Amino acid sequence: MTKLADLPRAETDSLGTVQIPAGAAWGTQTQRAIENFPITGVAINHYPEVVVALAQVKAACARTNAELGGLPPKKAQVISKVCDEIIAGQHHEHFAVDLMQGGAGTSTNMNANEVIANIALAHMGRSFGDYVALHPNDDVNCSQSTNDVYPTAIRLATLAKTRPLVAAMTGLVAAFRSKAEELNDVIKVGRTQLQDAVPMSLGDEFRGFATTIAEDIDRIVELAKLLTEVNLGGTAIGTRINTPKGYSERAVAHLSAISGQDLSPASDLIEASSDLGAFVMFSSALKRVAIKLSKISNDLRLLSSGPRAGIGEIILPAVQAGSSIMPGKVNPVIPEVVNQICFQAIGNDLVVTVAAEAGQLQLNAMEPVIFYKIMETMTTLTNGMDILTERCVIGIEADRTRCAELLNGSLVLATTLVPLMGYEAATKLAKYAQAEGLTLRDAGAAQGVPNSLFDEIA
Amino acid sequence: MTKLADLPRAETDSLGTVQIPAGAAWGTQTQRAIENFPITGVAINHYPEVVVALAQVKAACARTNAELGGLPPKKAQVISKVCDEIIAGQHHEHFAVDLMQGGAGTSTNMNANEVIANIALAHMGRSFGDYVALHPNDDVNCSQSTNDVYPTAIRLATLAKTRPLVAAMTGLVAAFRSKAEELNDVIKVGRTQLQDAVPMSLGDEFRGFATTIAEDIDRIVELAKLLTEVNLGGTAIGTRINTPKGYSERAVAHLSAISGQDLSPASDLIEASSDLGAFVMFSSALKRVAIKLSKISNDLRLLSSGPRAGIGEIILPAVQAGSSIMPGKVNPVIPEVVNQICFQAIGNDLVVTVAAEAGQLQLNAMEPVIFYKIMETMTTLTNGMDILTERCVIGIEADRTRCAELLNGSLVLATTLVPLMGYEAATKLAKYAQAEGLTLRDAGAAQGVPNSLFDEIA
Amino acid sequence: MTKLADLPRAETDSLGTVQIPAGAAWGTQTQRAIENFPITGVAINHYPEVVVALAQVKAACARTNAELGGLPPKKAQVISKVCDEIIAGQHHEHFAVDLMQGGAGTSTNMNANEVIANIALAHMGRSFGDYVALHPNDDVNCSQSTNDVYPTAIRLATLAKTRPLVAAMTGLVAAFRSKAEELNDVIKVGRTQLQDAVPMSLGDEFRGFATTIAEDIDRIVELAKLLTEVNLGGTAIGTRINTPKGYSERAVAHLSAISGQDLSPASDLIEASSDLGAFVMFSSALKRVAIKLSKISNDLRLLSSGPRAGIGEIILPAVQAGSSIMPGKVNPVIPEVVNQICFQAIGNDLVVTVAAEAGQLQLNAMEPVIFYKIMETMTTLTNGMDILTERCVIGIEADRTRCAELLNGSLVLATTLVPLMGYEAATKLAKYAQAEGLTLRDAGAAQGVPNSLFDEIA
Amino acid sequence: MTKLADLPRAETDSLGTVQIPAGAAWGTQTQRAIENFPITGVAINHYPEVVVALAQVKAACARTNAELGGLPPKKAQVISKVCDEIIAGQHHEHFAVDLMQGGAGTSTNMNANEVIANIALAHMGRSFGDYVALHPNDDVNCSQSTNDVYPTAIRLATLAKTRPLVAAMTGLVAAFRSKAEELNDVIKVGRTQLQDAVPMSLGDEFRGFATTIAEDIDRIVELAKLLTEVNLGGTAIGTRINTPKGYSERAVAHLSAISGQDLSPASDLIEASSDLGAFVMFSSALKRVAIKLSKISNDLRLLSSGPRAGIGEIILPAVQAGSSIMPGKVNPVIPEVVNQICFQAIGNDLVVTVAAEAGQLQLNAMEPVIFYKIMETMTTLTNGMDILTERCVIGIEADRTRCAELLNGSLVLATTLVPLMGYEAATKLAKYAQAEGLTLRDAGAAQGVPNSLFDEIA
Repeated sequence: MTKLADLPRAETDSLGTVQIPAGAAWGTQTQRAIENFPITGVAINHYPEVVVALAQVKAACARTNAELGGLPPKKAQVISKVCDEIIAGQHHEHFAVDLMQGGAGTSTNMNANEVIANIALAHMGRSFGDYVALHPNDDVNCSQSTNDVYPTAIRLATLAKTRPLVAAMTGLVAAFRSKAEELNDVIKVGRTQLQDAVPMSLGDEFRGFATTIAEDIDRIVELAKLLTEVNLGGTAIGTRINTPKGYSERAVAHLSAISGQDLSPASDLIEASSDLGAFVMFSSALKRVAIKLSKISNDLRLLSSGPRAGIGEIILPAVQAGSSIMPGKVNPVIPEVVNQICFQAIGNDLVVTVAAEAGQLQLNAMEPVIFYKIMETMTTLTNGMDILTERCVIGIEADRTRCAELLNGSLVLATTLVPLMGYEAATKLAKYAQAEGLTLRDAGAAQGVPNSLFDEIA
Repeated sequence: MTKLADLPRAETDSLGTVQIPAGAAWGTQTQRAIENFPITGVAINHYPEVVVALAQVKAACARTNAELGGLPPKKAQVISKVCDEIIAGQHHEHFAVDLMQGGAGTSTNMNANEVIANIALAHMGRSFGDYVALHPNDDVNCSQSTNDVYPTAIRLATLAKTRPLVAAMTGLVAAFRSKAEELNDVIKVGRTQLQDAVPMSLGDEFRGFATTIAEDIDRIVELAKLLTEVNLGGTAIGTRINTPKGYSERAVAHLSAISGQDLSPASDLIEASSDLGAFVMFSSALKRVAIKLSKISNDLRLLSSGPRAGIGEIILPAVQAGSSIMPGKVNPVIPEVVNQICFQAIGNDLVVTVAAEAGQLQLNAMEPVIFYKIMETMTTLTNGMDILTERCVIGIEADRTRCAELLNGSLVLATTLVPLMGYEAATKLAKYAQAEGLTLRDAGAAQGVPNSLFDEIA
Repeated sequence: MTKLADLPRAETDSLGTVQIPAGAAWGTQTQRAIENFPITGVAINHYPEVVVALAQVKAACARTNAELGGLPPKKAQVISKVCDEIIAGQHHEHFAVDLMQGGAGTSTNMNANEVIANIALAHMGRSFGDYVALHPNDDVNCSQSTNDVYPTAIRLATLAKTRPLVAAMTGLVAAFRSKAEELNDVIKVGRTQLQDAVPMSLGDEFRGFATTIAEDIDRIVELAKLLTEVNLGGTAIGTRINTPKGYSERAVAHLSAISGQDLSPASDLIEASSDLGAFVMFSSALKRVAIKLSKISNDLRLLSSGPRAGIGEIILPAVQAGSSIMPGKVNPVIPEVVNQICFQAIGNDLVVTVAAEAGQLQLNAMEPVIFYKIMETMTTLTNGMDILTERCVIGIEADRTRCAELLNGSLVLATTLVPLMGYEAATKLAKYAQAEGLTLRDAGAAQGVPNSLFDEIA
Repeated sequence: MTKLADLPRAETDSLGTVQIPAGAAWGTQTQRAIENFPITGVAINHYPEVVVALAQVKAACARTNAELGGLPPKKAQVISKVCDEIIAGQHHEHFAVDLMQGGAGTSTNMNANEVIANIALAHMGRSFGDYVALHPNDDVNCSQSTNDVYPTAIRLATLAKTRPLVAAMTGLVAAFRSKAEELNDVIKVGRTQLQDAVPMSLGDEFRGFATTIAEDIDRIVELAKLLTEVNLGGTAIGTRINTPKGYSERAVAHLSAISGQDLSPASDLIEASSDLGAFVMFSSALKRVAIKLSKISNDLRLLSSGPRAGIGEIILPAVQAGSSIMPGKVNPVIPEVVNQICFQAIGNDLVVTVAAEAGQLQLNAMEPVIFYKIMETMTTLTNGMDILTERCVIGIEADRTRCAELLNGSLVLATTLVPLMGYEAATKLAKYAQAEGLTLRDAGAAQGVPNSLFDEIA
């Protein structure tokens, strides 16, 4: 937070007088919210994307109001100017309400209204709180309600956060693909149900990791599109109350231009005011990423288990000492932290689920926790995939000797005998080999199977 | 289950001899599975879609094998014939293994292999168990593995079950739309956060219900498409082991023709063998339906609360007596059971999540519970929406008097005063009216607001 | 269901006339409920414990009513007699409403009231439906409401189901303990984070499984006690409306005697009418069992992985062929199905959670799904532990050779060097040994560590 | 963080050389962990309880080592002294690793070892990093492993955090009890399934809230006891490797004395090393609190709905303006934020569930996320209950007029007619009254029911 002046100032609203910390650009409603919601200690500005998105919405509305006569051009201009500054990264320290808040985002919206009004007042040479000249509700919030501003802003912020997420996924896919090329010639035992199955290459295995995350990129991009349908202009409950004709469409067009996102107005604004289906679906896509990443982390840990009394087909880079008591132990700490990030994503998706179900009538008052948890999941998944790529995947090495030993010692070629001798005979042979500790060929010799048959399958 | 003959028969496999109940068309592996998995009492044939899907897969493979030389035409023909009978609804009583089973579906696949083999043997004039003439593994399962047959079959079954689900959704949407038309002129209090907000019509409210479920139909249809990518032909782990060249593509084409679904082979068969992302996404879409249906059920219960000491804007049809002790009480039992169905769907989605994460290396052995829970969710959501439509929505009536009384007694027109007198003055007026128990107009009169202003907003 | 007579009979209530299937002992309210709730196909009598519990409650109430003058002795006697028959296992076929139902259990309670009334009427030589002689509501339900009968009955049923669950747990603990004794002398590599750590014995490992499940028995027994607090006598919302003085305490005493459970009346009947905290806690205990069982199943699958290219320290009994394509493959199908049962239990606990949160004001209408899911979890966990014990644990064998090989080839004795040479020097030695593929002793020799030091730690 | 000196210093471990920020008291392993885990931005010292707990464990171990000869008295003394300082609140700025970390807590344990060693070195007049004089592993971590230190410390931290949680619960219970006394004489409509049921008092309703949270205090206290069983002294996997005889028991006794918690050593140290059942159970108890708090918040929002077109029986204190567009609107923002806190708690319990299931063999590497989420839940529940008490419950007022109007206008006395005229006749009367919009008495008059009967039930 920037350095604030020394003395608090007093502001009054219909509930009474409130002391605002010196230098704080917010007003009574923000101050009350700060005091009402000392919950997580994580303020709105922890995710700059939402501060920027709020400013983008406010700018789009100001411009639309100016065009449709809702606001005098001068007021619209100064509002717009402040919004541009916020979009450029200024003033974020004044967005100070806890992300977890009651009121369906009203405190977030009022935080924006008050800060923009006060900074604008300062630009106009007036003092903070001199709302006669520019009012947080009547001017900055003109033709708006929290119930359209907040849902629109959190959609925009989520879309903005999608970019680094997809970048992290893309980086991970590239790392897996490159590793797959590198390990393409390492033939090893493929396993189903943790039991030796049939041969495959390490390249195949890593290519599978790449494919599965690449498919997730498609899902994320596809389902993020659901978030581009916004209810801006619906105001209180979607009836467009207090907006001029044509406002919604024009405001959304402005917002598309400002944000660079291809937004469209919801076809049913009443429905759009209370529905969080797009977040449910997007959170599900994040959960799908988490499920796959966790499975991959499990596999990396399994394949590198040992180093001597496990599978040990691959070696993960050692990034720190593994134990405070066991010398030389190296643990798969990067996949382990990724697992935990994924578990958190799964839990957060449940929060989204329960909160989405809790909507009532014309609004879902639980939007703040939905937004908070989705941002938490996106941030940690992005961080997790970045370190997985950089500190684990690109440094993975195959233990080629181990792969070959395990393959040669196994009975995985038995499957190829089925077309040659039938399932039942092949089963008997494989069971005999396992019981006697023999190779298939030696077991075959003992059981009178022609040696030539084994040449065919090698 | 059909009447079975009197005496059990004995069959022997590499693990020993097993008694098969008289008349049962299955063999040792099915019998062992029945004994190993006495878990839920819900057998495979509880969902006929999966029995049909298994037969479709087996038919497609038999035809492909015949074309590519893997099976003699006669064997392929008799297998195909039995499959056609199963698709037509015969022999389902022999699909008797518990849906919840270990082994990644091997028991389900072997149940199909053994039943098809034995019924075919009967058609060939031979006895059950005479596998020299036609073998469950070598012939019926030719060029196949459980690891491609089972995932393909459960995808097909899920797709088949999507039809009645979408039909139920479509019926519900139509009922809500029709009710919206009927109630379009009923103006009432719109509410946010359970507090009186601004006016709206009951028609708007019910149209919102229609819109939100209609959007879900789009999601279901869209995400069901992910299930059309199948791994048939990948066999054990996706390396196509034991299949002739071109087999996968041709088998999938046959299966598309047989099932009427537009299937395609997975681009990365290794990845497709272990990945359950499509089920995760589809289950998420089901969960989204559940979240919305539950929210709608909550709203219907809220709006019909009372009949006298609640909101009471709508009246749900009385479908049964509400209480064993309170005479005349009518409860919203249909929305209540829908809520519970939705809660189950949410829980089942978690089962899918946890099971999907549990995949290891080249396979996810937890597929059976994923399939089971998705089918349970689909069935109960379908049933729930059908009764919601028929026994609740179409019979809903508005209490027009109550709607008008609540609206007229409320202060919801205060919002329209904001553009006329500013947010702060309007707030003072509304608070005064509420404190004194006055209408806005009377409060305005007492506070010196010109009466004409209220004419403007009425 | 028993054979029913041929012709349906008509009955009339305040909603109109209903056709009851011939021979069915239920009345209009049950029939309406059957038609209103075609949801899961799982009827109340799927869990005989709840039918018995309903009869126990009805008997307790009839006796109390007789004592306090609420019912004539003759009526009380015949009700009691029918209840005894139901407790003994008769008439269950008439409890036919779907377990998943709206109305907070009213349909279940009315199913009991109507069936008991009609069977009693038959005993009195009257026809079904001749309620003037004995009325389902006025007599069988005398001094009762669904809102105390249903919560009490489902608590009793859950308590009854706890017995086989605890028996299954006890059996599993015994099997693990016995196996631990058997394998006590098998020394092997202990592993943390899937990496070789320090030595331990297989006996220790299996003893740990026993300990952890034994602790769960304590939790189940302890938390089941919360279910012994019942709200019988609270009637509609806990105000004891329509009950004579002293009724609640006396009815609960009778019910304790009849059921053999040590029940007590809730101290705050209002709170007890809507609160499901005891089920939440009990379901959590079931989830804890599921978490541990799933972890144990995972461990059994890991330890038996291979047989050649995995860890392979133990061998699970082969209970069926493992693959339709891979001959000789044996899969850990029993632990796999237990995993899936556990995943279902985790999902069911979420259903309980969400449903418990959905209570409103003086009641939680979502009790039926809570009961249904808890019973499903208890049944499948019981079945799963029984097969885990019988078809897996008792037949487990150690591969002693493999355990010794892995131990001797590993570097797990490095930890014991720390007190002798310090963490840093020991780390260097262990890393050198691993890099060069040496034993610790050989690495020590190469690095000038006195040989005698290794004698100390062997 | 305290002011740090200007130049970074270099330290070297077996993986290479690392730059440590100037003034930082940590060493290479902490530094590597900081770089490996840039995940949440929430460091260990975000929860001072865990820093204190780590110091308590280290002090207890140092004293035990001194007594049993594992450490020279001087080393033990200086370690102890530094631990005392940390317990008193000093040096927390050096506990800087992200709470979400791989390695099962090794980085947290090493952070403690390194900081204690370096601060002690400073006390000894030596420089940071001069580990020859006092070594993080050989001395501070003597007779310890992360695998017993970390689980013990997070149990202690959780127990410490239980105190403010229980205090918040106690405060809320007191507020509800006091409000119940205040509102005892306000008779109102009791509701089941949102439908008018039978009369009750507001006092009863608030007393129910008090009772239900009071019961949760019992559960929290009871289940917290499970956390007092610790595995300290088990070291790496519970085999007590590298500890002197009697160490575990003595170290736990020291730790009890230092922490003021009544701890005991786990009976099966192997099991205790990997088992997180106590956290699962405790998290379930937290979830139970969340479920109840959320239900209560829902009820407060329902009962205060309106103010005119809802139930409106109670008035919540206005703590901030409710809307940016709707003047005078007051929203239930405190209960709303409590709902969201509860949803987060439910999601966090799922994280605990999934992470607990993910333990493997001799350890659960996912402990860090379990601890993190439990602390988050405890903190936010505590904060939420505090504001619920102070900013909502104590200021609640009844709208006595409204309560009386709704009660008198309702038909809730119909239940009391049942013993007088039978269920069927009472049902007919109640239905007639509702259909005609009459009171019961007027309906009775119209239907020929003696007026005197209504005097009896009034």
